[in-house]
This record gives sequence, C-alpha cells and structure tokens, in this order.
Amino acid sequence: MAGDRWLSELVRRALEEDLGPGDVTSTACLPADLSARARLEAREPGVLAGLAAAEEVFRQVNPAIAFRPRLRDGDTFAAGERLVDLAGPARDLLAAERTALNFLQRLCGIATLTRRYVEAVAGTGAVIVDTRKTTPGLRLLEKAAVRAGGGQNHRFGLYDGILIKDNHIVAAGGLRAAVKAARASAHHLLKIEVEVTRLADVEEALAAGADVLLLDNMPVAEMAEAVRRVGGRALVEASGGVNLETVAAIARCGVNFISVGRLTHSAPALDLSMELE
Amino acid sequence: MAGDRWLSELVRRALEEDLGPGDVTSTACLPADLSARARLEAREPGVLAGLAAAEEVFRQVNPAIAFRPRLRDGDTFAAGERLVDLAGPARDLLAAERTALNFLQRLCGIATLTRRYVEAVAGTGAVIVDTRKTTPGLRLLEKAAVRAGGGQNHRFGLYDGILIKDNHIVAAGGLRAAVKAARASAHHLLKIEVEVTRLADVEEALAAGADVLLLDNMPVAEMAEAVRRVGGRALVEASGGVNLETVAAIARCGVNFISVGRLTHSAPALDLSMELE
Amino acid sequence: MAGDRWLSELVRRALEEDLGPGDVTSTACLPADLSARARLEAREPGVLAGLAAAEEVFRQVNPAIAFRPRLRDGDTFAAGERLVDLAGPARDLLAAERTALNFLQRLCGIATLTRRYVEAVAGTGAVIVDTRKTTPGLRLLEKAAVRAGGGQNHRFGLYDGILIKDNHIVAAGGLRAAVKAARASAHHLLKIEVEVTRLADVEEALAAGADVLLLDNMPVAEMAEAVRRVGGRALVEASGGVNLETVAAIARCGVNFISVGRLTHSAPALDLSMELE
Amino acid sequence: MAGDRWLSELVRRALEEDLGPGDVTSTACLPADLSARARLEAREPGVLAGLAAAEEVFRQVNPAIAFRPRLRDGDTFAAGERLVDLAGPARDLLAAERTALNFLQRLCGIATLTRRYVEAVAGTGAVIVDTRKTTPGLRLLEKAAVRAGGGQNHRFGLYDGILIKDNHIVAAGGLRAAVKAARASAHHLLKIEVEVTRLADVEEALAAGADVLLLDNMPVAEMAEAVRRVGGRALVEASGGVNLETVAAIARCGVNFISVGRLTHSAPALDLSMELE
Amino acid sequence: MAGDRWLSELVRRALEEDLGPGDVTSTACLPADLSARARLEAREPGVLAGLAAAEEVFRQVNPAIAFRPRLRDGDTFAAGERLVDLAGPARDLLAAERTALNFLQRLCGIATLTRRYVEAVAGTGAVIVDTRKTTPGLRLLEKAAVRAGGGQNHRFGLYDGILIKDNHIVAAGGLRAAVKAARASAHHLLKIEVEVTRLADVEEALAAGADVLLLDNMPVAEMAEAVRRVGGRALVEASGGVNLETVAAIARCGVNFISVGRLTHSAPALDLSMELE
Amino acid sequence: MAGDRWLSELVRRALEEDLGPGDVTSTACLPADLSARARLEAREPGVLAGLAAAEEVFRQVNPAIAFRPRLRDGDTFAAGERLVDLAGPARDLLAAERTALNFLQRLCGIATLTRRYVEAVAGTGAVIVDTRKTTPGLRLLEKAAVRAGGGQNHRFGLYDGILIKDNHIVAAGGLRAAVKAARASAHHLLKIEVEVTRLADVEEALAAGADVLLLDNMPVAEMAEAVRRVGGRALVEASGGVNLETVAAIARCGVNFISVGRLTHSAPALDLSMELE
Repeated sequence: MAGDRWLSELVRRALEEDLGPGDVTSTACLPADLSARARLEAREPGVLAGLAAAEEVFRQVNPAIAFRPRLRDGDTFAAGERLVDLAGPARDLLAAERTALNFLQRLCGIATLTRRYVEAVAGTGAVIVDTRKTTPGLRLLEKAAVRAGGGQNHRFGLYDGILIKDNHIVAAGGLRAAVKAARASAHHLLKIEVEVTRLADVEEALAAGADVLLLDNMPVAEMAEAVRRVGGRALVEASGGVNLETVAAIARCGVNFISVGRLTHSAPALDLSMELE
Repeated sequence: MAGDRWLSELVRRALEEDLGPGDVTSTACLPADLSARARLEAREPGVLAGLAAAEEVFRQVNPAIAFRPRLRDGDTFAAGERLVDLAGPARDLLAAERTALNFLQRLCGIATLTRRYVEAVAGTGAVIVDTRKTTPGLRLLEKAAVRAGGGQNHRFGLYDGILIKDNHIVAAGGLRAAVKAARASAHHLLKIEVEVTRLADVEEALAAGADVLLLDNMPVAEMAEAVRRVGGRALVEASGGVNLETVAAIARCGVNFISVGRLTHSAPALDLSMELE
Repeated sequence: MAGDRWLSELVRRALEEDLGPGDVTSTACLPADLSARARLEAREPGVLAGLAAAEEVFRQVNPAIAFRPRLRDGDTFAAGERLVDLAGPARDLLAAERTALNFLQRLCGIATLTRRYVEAVAGTGAVIVDTRKTTPGLRLLEKAAVRAGGGQNHRFGLYDGILIKDNHIVAAGGLRAAVKAARASAHHLLKIEVEVTRLADVEEALAAGADVLLLDNMPVAEMAEAVRRVGGRALVEASGGVNLETVAAIARCGVNFISVGRLTHSAPALDLSMELE
Repeated sequence: MAGDRWLSELVRRALEEDLGPGDVTSTACLPADLSARARLEAREPGVLAGLAAAEEVFRQVNPAIAFRPRLRDGDTFAAGERLVDLAGPARDLLAAERTALNFLQRLCGIATLTRRYVEAVAGTGAVIVDTRKTTPGLRLLEKAAVRAGGGQNHRFGLYDGILIKDNHIVAAGGLRAAVKAARASAHHLLKIEVEVTRLADVEEALAAGADVLLLDNMPVAEMAEAVRRVGGRALVEASGGVNLETVAAIARCGVNFISVGRLTHSAPALDLSMELE
Repeated sequence: MAGDRWLSELVRRALEEDLGPGDVTSTACLPADLSARARLEAREPGVLAGLAAAEEVFRQVNPAIAFRPRLRDGDTFAAGERLVDLAGPARDLLAAERTALNFLQRLCGIATLTRRYVEAVAGTGAVIVDTRKTTPGLRLLEKAAVRAGGGQNHRFGLYDGILIKDNHIVAAGGLRAAVKAARASAHHLLKIEVEVTRLADVEEALAAGADVLLLDNMPVAEMAEAVRRVGGRALVEASGGVNLETVAAIARCGVNFISVGRLTHSAPALDLSMELE
Repeated sequence: MAGDRWLSELVRRALEEDLGPGDVTSTACLPADLSARARLEAREPGVLAGLAAAEEVFRQVNPAIAFRPRLRDGDTFAAGERLVDLAGPARDLLAAERTALNFLQRLCGIATLTRRYVEAVAGTGAVIVDTRKTTPGLRLLEKAAVRAGGGQNHRFGLYDGILIKDNHIVAAGGLRAAVKAARASAHHLLKIEVEVTRLADVEEALAAGADVLLLDNMPVAEMAEAVRRVGGRALVEASGGVNLETVAAIARCGVNFISVGRLTHSAPALDLSMELE
C-alpha cells in the first residue's frame, strides 16, 4: 500500500537522523554476536497507538528482530504494563530503541488525549475529529492515532475536501459565488463545507448549497441556535476554543462534529521505556 | 550547507502531505491572479523559533512570495504581536499557511518552554541541554529551537558522542571494560560519558577515565554529594524527573548540565495564526 | 505547488530515459556555442494541452532556452500552425526536442479527442468526465488535458472519492451495508457514489443514502428510466460503451455526467514537430 | 538488474498516484481479512505484453498475492481468454486492479499493433523497429512490448546510437564533416546512421563512411532506387508515413528496417478487465 | 542535461558525507558574516580536470561563492600555480574545501597520468582509451578526466557497446554463434567487438563478422602479426599488461586502440590545496 | 543500520552506471537459464576489505546468487588465492562482475597499503589513522578498509569532531579565543583538537584547553620536542609529508597518532579477477 511505502521512508529518515554513520557506543561496548530480550513498557496509563511505526523501526534496523506486541492499537494499558516483547542482537535493539520510542510516546500521547475527549462527549452523538494542525511529515500516523483513541478523521489535506473560509468568500465575491465556484471546479464526489461565524450567515450558506457548516469560535448558545436553524439540512461542525472543560457543552448543542487541534499539536508525550532483560 | 538540503527535503514532504495534487478550495474560489498581503501573528506571548522553516515553506510554494520577518529566532514577543509580513498570490499564501504554521507553532513552543527552564536556573552555572527525545524527522529544527530558547544541545545522535549506559556496562563486562572498549574503538575526538545511578559508582567511573558523568534519576542530595566527590575531575550532567518545580534545586547541586526531555517531546504548541489583510 | 514538484520529477525521469549519459550525435556534430531558433508546429489541427510539461523539458535541459508559446492550453490550432517559438543553444534544443514532443503529442491528442466528445453533447447539460484509466505516472497531466479539451475531472484516485462497486457490495453484505460502512469510515467531506447495473437497484441505492449513482453499461432506454426514477434525489453518471456514436444519445437521457475511458487510454497522438530555423 | 530497479520505481510512483494515502472505499466496505480469487481477462483478442509490470504492481501492494500467468509475453489470446489467475486479500486485489490494468492495456495494445505490422511485411526480409516516440517514463516497457509483438528495437536513447539528421549536417558544415566529427568523438563501438532525404545524397553518405542510411519520407519508387544504389555497402532503414496500408510496399523495396512511430505513440489500449470470483 | 543532474546528485551526497548536520568547528570559530578570498593551487605539476565538479561543490554550499578558474580542463599547470580564485563567506569556503579538493585531486591525477600515456604513443596512430575499471559512482567524471588528458573513451557501460569475451563464446556455442546472436538481438547501431587471445582466432572472428577485435594479454610480436592478418578488415584494440614501459611498443604494432585500466583505477591523487588569503 | 541503507544506495547507483537499461552482450549471447560457478581471486598478495560491498552488488543483481567468502575483511591472501565462491545465473554473474571488482580492487588496495604503514610503526605505540581525503561518496567503505588494514579512523566528517586550524584561529582572534568559542558552541561530548605548526604554540594551545594537538608538517626533531613539552597533558597527532620512508621516525617521536592521507587518496588498486568455472 502507498501508506506502507510512506511509513518505510519516514522511518528510514528518522533512523538516519539518529544513527548517522553508526552507533559509536554500542559498536564499541557490545559484542557483535550478543543477543538479548527486551520489553517496551508503559510508565503511565494510556491508549496504544503507533505499533506499526515502532515495528518498522526495529525491522529496518534488523529484520531478524522479533517484535511481538501484547496489545493492539486502541487498547488501553496501565502504568507498568508490558506492551511489546522484543528479541534480537543487543546492538540492534539499542540502535532502534530511541527512534521507536520517539514514535510511540508521541502517538500514544495523541491516542490517550483523544480518548479523554471522546469520553467527555459520550452519549451526545457528537463525533470528535482531528484537524490539519499535525506535525509536518507525520500526518498519516497522527490521524491513525486519533482513530486509535476513538476519534474520527477530518479531511487529510487540501486536496480531498472543500472547506470555504472567510478569505475564500471575500475573494470569490460572496458566499454564494464561492460555493458555486467550488461546485463548478471540484469533482462531483466532494462535498462543500462553509465556515460560518455569525448566525446571520447560516441561512445564506444553506441557500448556496453548502453540504456542511463549520461554526468557528461561536459562543455555545449561538451554536445551539445555529443547529436549530439548520434543522438537518446540512451537517454541522464546531471548532475553536475546544478543550476538556468546554467540549461536553459544545457537544450538547447538537453539532455533528467537533474538531480539536490540540489532539495533534499539543498532546504531551506518554512516558514509555525499553528495558533489556 | 547539508542542513539546507535537509530542510528543503523536509519541507517538500510536509507540503506534499498537505497539498497532494492540489488545493481544491483555493483553486476553485480564488482567481489565479489575485494578490494579497498577510501577517503571521502570535495569539499568546513566547519566544520565536523556526523562521527558516516557515520561510522555506512559502519559498517552495512560490519563490515570488515576499517573506519579511520582524523578529529573529530567539526574540520574545507579546500576544497579538506581528511576527512576519507576507505578500504574494493569495492562492499560494493560503496553500502554504497551514504547513508554515505547523512548523512555527511547534518550534516556538519548544523555544518558549526552554526559555522558562533557562530562567529557572539563572545564576547557578548549570546549562539546560536537550535530549534525543525529539520528533522523528525534525531533530535538527527542534535542537535549533532549544538554542533559540537559550538552551544548549547535547549530542545530535548515536554517531557523534559516546554515552555508556547500564546495558553497555553489563554487556561489556563492567564499567572499566566498557570505557576501555569505547576508548579503543571510537575516534580520538570523542569524549566518553558514563551513566551513574549510585554514589558508589562515581569513583569507579572516574578511575576508568570517563570524561563526563551522567547522574540519572538521582535524589537531589545524592547528586550534590556526587558533584562534591567528582571535584572537577569530570563534567557532570543530571537527567531524569526534571521539571520546572525541580530544576532549580538540581542546578544548585553544582552539576554542569541538566538534560530535559520534555523540552522537545511535550512542549505544547504556541498559538499562532496567519491573517490576510 | 506540489504539482510543480511532481512535474519536475516526471520530466527529470523522462529526460534521463532519453539522454542517459549524453546525446552522442549532437555532442559530436554541433559546436558547443552554436545558437539556433526553432518552432514547435502542428501537422494536423487540434486542441493544445501540455504546454507546462514541454516548457519544463526545455527548462531542465537548459534554463537559458527561451520558450514562448503563441497559444494557451485549451486553444484550437490549424494544421501548420506555429505553437511555440524557441531560441537557445542548438545542442540543447535538439536534446530536449523528442522528450518535449512526446509529452505534447500525447496531451494534445487527449485534449483534441475530449473536445469532440464535449461538442457531441453540447446543449444536453451532460458533462464529459475522465476516468482513472490513465497512463501510469502521467495522471495529473492527462487530467489537465481533459480540462483543456473542455471536459471535467472525476476523482483523482482511490483516496479522494468513494465509488462503491459490485465487489464492495457483495463483500459488505449488501448495498445498504456498504453505504453505511462508507459513511462511518470516510471523512465527512466525501460523497458516496454507488454503481447500479439494474433498474431494480436504483431505489435501494437512494434509500441507502447514495449521493451519486453510476449507471454502468446500461442500455440507453434503461438509463433514461433510471434518471426518471432518481428524480433529482441524487446525481447520475453514465459509463461503459461510450463512443462518439453513442455519447449524444446517452447525454439526452438526462444523466449529469458521462465518463469516457478512451479520452485517456486510447487517444491517438497528435502529429507535431520541432523545426530549426 | 538495473531494469528491475527502474520498473520497481515506476510502479511505486504509479501506485502512489492512484492510492495516495489509501483506498477509502475498500477500507470502508471490505473486511481486512477477506480473501478472494480473481482473474485478469481479455475482452478482445490480442498479443500479451507487460506481465512483469502487472506482477510488480500486485507484488508492491502485497507480496502475499499469488500472481499466476497462464500465458507469456508474446503469446496471442482470444476475446474472453483468462490471462492471469490471482488470489489474495480482497482489499489488496482491488487496490492494485486499476494500476495493473493501466499498464497491461497499453502494453498489450502496443504488442498487438506491432504484430499486425510484422505480419504485413512477412516474407520480405524487412524488420519492423520502434522509435523514440514513446510515452515519457515508459520507454523500456514499451520497447519490450514491441519485441513481444515481434518487432525489434531501434536505439534506446540519444546515448547509445548515432543518427545524423539534417540539422546536424548543416551545423557541422556538410555530411562528410558531420560523419567525420561523429567518428572522432563517439566511442569505437557505435555505428553511424545518416538521414538521407534525396537520392542525390546516397553516394555522399556512403563515401563519408556511414554505416546505416535512413531514408526519411521518401516515395516508394525512390526508396527502391536508393536501395539499389547502396548495393549492400550499408544498412538501409525507412521511416515516415508508414502505416498498415503502405508498410508492405515499403518492405518490398528491399530496405533492412522500417521504423514505425505509431507502434508506441498511437496504439489504442486493449480492453482487459479484472473479475473477482 | 542528464549529466548535470547526475553531477548535482553526486556532489550532494559527497557534501552530506562530509558535513552531516554541520561543520562544528567553523560554526563555532568563524563569525557568520566573515568574508574571505581563497585560491585553489597546485603543489605539483599536472593536467587539469574536474573543474565542473569542484564548481558544483562550492555552488551547492553557497551559490553566492565566486568561483573563477584561471585554466580549463585539459590545460597543464606547474607546481605552485594558482588554478581557481574564490571569494565568499569564510565558513562556506571551509565547508566546501575538502570535498572540492577530493574531487579535483583524483581527477587531475587521472588526467595527468593519461597525458603521460598519450605522449608515450605520440606519432604511432594508436589511441589511448579507458576501461570500465572506474571508481563506483564516478565513471562519467573519470571518463571526462581521461578526455582532458588526451585519451578517448571506450563504451560507457554494458548497455552501449557489445564486447564478446571468452565466457560469452563458450556459453553461446562458439564464436560464430555468439556474433550471430549479438547481431540478432542488439539494435542496428551497435558494432560488435570480440576478444581474441590467440592468433588462430583472428580469422574466425573476422569471418563471423566482428567489427572490432580485442587482443587481450597477447605478446607484442603476436599482436603485430594479428594486426597484419586483420589487414584493415576490422578495428583492433590491445589490452592487458599495459604500462608506461610497454605502451610504446604495443602502439608500434599498429593497433588502433590501447585500453589502459590503471588510468582510472590506480592514478595517484595530485597534490592540491586551498589557501585563504 | 543506517550504514546498510547507505551501502545499498551506493551500490544501486554503481550498478545503474554500468548496466543502464541492460547488458546487451550477455542478453544476446547467454541463454537466460544458464547457471554457472565462478570465483573471485587475487592476482597479487594483499589484505582483504570490501566484502560487504561486493556481496551487496551480487545480491542486488540477483538475490539468488550464492556468495561464499573464504576469508574475512582484514585477512591476508597470496597471489592466486581464491577469495569468494559464487554460483548463480551466468548472465547475472557477468552483469555484477565489473562493479563488484571495482569496489574490491580499491578497498583491498587501501587495506593493503594501510597494513604496510601499520607494520612500519609496530612497537612504537603510535596509531595509524586516516583523514577526510577520501573518494567522494565512498568514505564509510574506505574508512572500514583502513580498519581492515589495522589502522584506526579519525573523525568521519566536519560534524563529529572539532579541529581548529590556522584559518579558524585567525578568524576567531587568536588560539585562546578559538578554543573558547568551540567550547561554548559544540556539545559537551566533543574534544577539541588544535593545529600547531610551531613549537612556540604548544604551550598556548595547552593553556587554552586543547584536548589534542595536531603537529602539521613539522620536522621530526621539532615533533619530538613538542611531544616532550606536552608531557601527557594532551594527545598528540602528527600529519603532513608522511610516507613509508618517514613514518617510523615520526612514530618514534612519541606521538599518539599519525594521520596519512595517501591511505585513501593514492592507494593503487589491487589486481583481482572473476573467473567462471
């Protein structure tokens, strides 16, 4: 799959960055033929994501390393829980360690934070989705981590979804003209989402033929009113100022989707380690 | 410079990830010949880092875009402050926006957090340094952000510094043997750092010829005693469990360096935006 | 733009294929400092497409070559008409000639054939669209040539549009289940198109929530009936067995889109040449 | 072999173009663990070519897919004939389908058309050869398809054969000077071919030491006279205005080679399909 | 030109190898804005080659560096002579220095040695040619250095010339069968060279239709006899055991070409340096 | 390991250079299914290096080729000794032959020359080290060949070691300032080496805190005096004008390291061959 090739290239660069022409410490201190067992383990509780990336790191360093996960992406784990069993040449395990953990700690961090948002809106019907505010080069992995956490994905880039914002509306000469232009130019399998910042724009967006409305940075009460006015004629997404304190109230407005930038741009790394045995 | 080529390739991949075969919204809604002015601005105070990456993003989308920074990496800014002035085709500014911000928000986050650690140890002589716990693929940028924040860099990878940890010591048959092996194998411009987790190991590490001692996860009082015993015969670095509450006390132990993983793995993104004018 | 980088890489490979370590004939026979003027000209009438690719070929061989088109993509031309004026080192013009023509002859062929289909359905409201039956590696250029000919594009790949075919329906356990699965998994800016091969399926597809129906290889009378039954509740696309004899009748059935594979897989090359002056 | 690496890279790009970040339809509708059998089959009669490319497509999508051809490149097949048996994960078969067919339909089209030219000159001693008028990026595959059809290849690019055309002759100061320059500059394992457009030039080209004469766009009677004048002192190739109506008469002039551009630039795609079973 | 792209890629890798993430010494010790002048100069006499590679090194490090050669490839120089004037940022001159010199010292070494062989056979009519015994990755540059030294090139690889050796003859079932097979398979602009190790084979090779005979490791007297027997019916190349002591005698046998492996595999580096001014 | 990927890429380019679109001779003359055995053998005595590169060449041409070395890197061999046994398709063995030998002949040449220097200083305590004067693109292989010959490596590039030369000292405003700047900027695991060309500078370099002194082009007597003055307070390296005649005398001065450029820039190729059996 294309994704596999992309991951393989990403991991290749990450390893080059850390290994350069070689690991001078392990080459010096460890016999070439020394085998070892090791485990990846959690130092705090969380949700697992990124197994494929970690596995690819070990595979590229040495395909002979055995990588046996005890859980799957999306599973929860406790502090101290063993996530993956490893066996192979000690030099290679140590060469891969930091790069594998750098992937896992970030992706588990994202999945764990996403799970908290998902749980906060449980029962409301609102779906937690991500944004394009991802780490440059890691978007596919971070979006998979959001799914592992129980969220859903928004569009993957500027190429597979139409989202008309204020800048586009002004440049196109009005909301109606912008939607019409999008309809004429984009292929017929793409829906059209329009950003709406005032209640007054809701009706115009619907009349223009928008399939989805994005309520951006709107007060909760206003959002509820917007949802009422839409009345099922389009999907509704909320964004802006979403955090764990506010998300439940936003969800109760009846929006279909809540997009949360901090899932990917500010999730703290989860504390993981590799231990030789 | 090699770094320039590396940055160019990194930005190229980040843009491909977001643009794919093209920005369907802007292509539809904006006239091809529409020019615009824009600004990158801060929504919260911080320390600037990542200008070169942001500039490269705009340059790759269209070399004709004017990119005029008002500050330099390492400068502080206030909420609402204008960081960069931009001018160019509106389509191209919008195509570059998200990718440029994704770089900047992360790197400013790192620089801003680093600055807080640096200020916390001011006057102690201790130097705040980073670790290898960086985002896969972004290490050089994140290490530059640490410098922008006032910290210094540790080794860049496994290839340009020797750090002997417990695993190496066990595998080599003891601390003395490990240091000797490293001395015999690595080239003569590399120093040797040895991880020490107990006071009892300090003297052995010095006797073995270690140039630097890494005190890992040691209680503060024990660290102070370790520094006293070393007595200037080697450099001393502290790591493990360092946060903004503990860092000053660690610094006052007299260690030379304090390495802080969360500078790069858990700094929250700084809130930045691009506004068309 | 990402497309620019993609084109640059495509042209680079095309030139390598033809030039290898160098043009042995021109290097031997032409003085290095010989300048020349040349023209690209048409030997038969048609519609222009592919200018950007041809320009990139000459630019990569030597950025000092002047490339001055007399027409734009989408313009028609007569037999014998001059399309582009060129000037530069004779060796470089000849090194670029074949590769530039190989791009142009194919893309003009596609645009010219598309124009004939577009003219055949003029006045019916039906839109001619392309398919994924493109030359491996040239899809973006061939889709641009379809636009130059007056057609519109269908989805660009498997990643930016949902098209549920019989195989998917069977595997998912029925049409309704397939649409539901697609709705649950894909992001909310993608519409869902369902292939329908019998009239009996039209109502089920609509009930399942399909946004677009693909009538594949249906007799014209049946297509007309299908359009009537849909009654505007979804978009309708026709495909299969479309040629210049049948396309007008299909269009008159009232379908919104007619997709034509042969636009890209079987358009004969247009006869073009480069002449030194 | 270098050719293998080139094919692998070509297929990689073709798959990326179609799959991007993933096949949204199959991922949604098909269970990850669903296996299937399928066949590639012909909808019209023809000559097989491109098996290696098709196999590489399936292999890259998933090396576990079984790809079992029933024929070999160069074999003829009837309408409805089964060409390849396939088995593997259903998602992966569908992800590979279009890209594999895009290669095969084009290459079989070339082989089938070539076979018709070869049959048209049977018994004359003339050899059908291809030109450099190939699809950018696919030259090696298209030249292999010509061989599968029974034709032979001309030079592969500007680097492995010397062909002196009018432009070279003028620039070099005459035919004799051009041949002499080529002899002095190119390595000693390359022959020299010279384009001859008038009978009057035949003797001069021979005197200059040309190894091969290219009779370009010459009337058939003139060609026959040229062959008579050469009298075996050089090889003779005909080109220009060759089609299925004219090729036999040209062959009967006694030329050694007839080069046909449309073999590769205008062969219509052969109609093939993949059916799940 | 394809060669330009190849050189650019080769230089990029050479610089990455030396610079990695950066030049730690110059970054530390030299102010970023310090400009300097410098010269490349010879410490021993020789023949210049490799200017384009050296220029590309400086250009990639910083396009603003002025690179002004005082001589051209193929020119001779004395010990102490200034070859190139340079001006630019001091950090960048030093970053490029070693890589530029590594190219130049090797290529000047090859040109200088070639010149000695060419002078040794002056007046005999024999041409000194190179072999495929070149440094992996540097073949095009080394073959250009041979031309700078006054030699000519043999084929560039296995793809642009036919050379039938003993292994091929045995496998093909005899010399005649091997030549016939080559004639039937290779395109019609390639000559056929056959290795001949005994006088007895000369007549058979000619009868089989060989265009060129390679006399490998033959005693000088035997070579002279072989040339006599060939009598101008084919070109003759000598190889094996050629050095500066034997080359003149071989040339006087009347062979057309003498191929010398050590031109490229064993030429000692010429002593060059860069001096800041 | 990163090194493995680097080697794989290097070999890929070397094979492309030689094979291009294919080996026209073997394809024509050898049946596709002909198997053969072969041996790599030495025509002169030496020290083995480069086995991994040679193996990678054969592996890339065809992974089914059996490659069985009889010796290991660092072993000595006699003239006529068999180094590697090979078995596989005859076409593939011949396609790989030249590229594999081009690696081996150069790397064995380096190992063999290094061994002579190492033997020349046996018993003195001085260590023979290499320099950055390596073939562009081959540095890691050539440094491994130096180790195979019994030498040690100096820094791998400008990024993993600090060496302050005259240019740096002048630009930094004196030796003391240069060392201080290096200490402040580089990470704390790098030592600082300073070039010293006069006895008068020895004390200043030590006072500035240099860890290593490089005595460049100093007369032997002066070197001995420098070593005496250093008195163990720093490591001492000698360079400049080192050859097999002078190296023993230099070693007896008591320096710790002697760096020899010609190990890598001027070692003549060792004469090796591949013979089919």
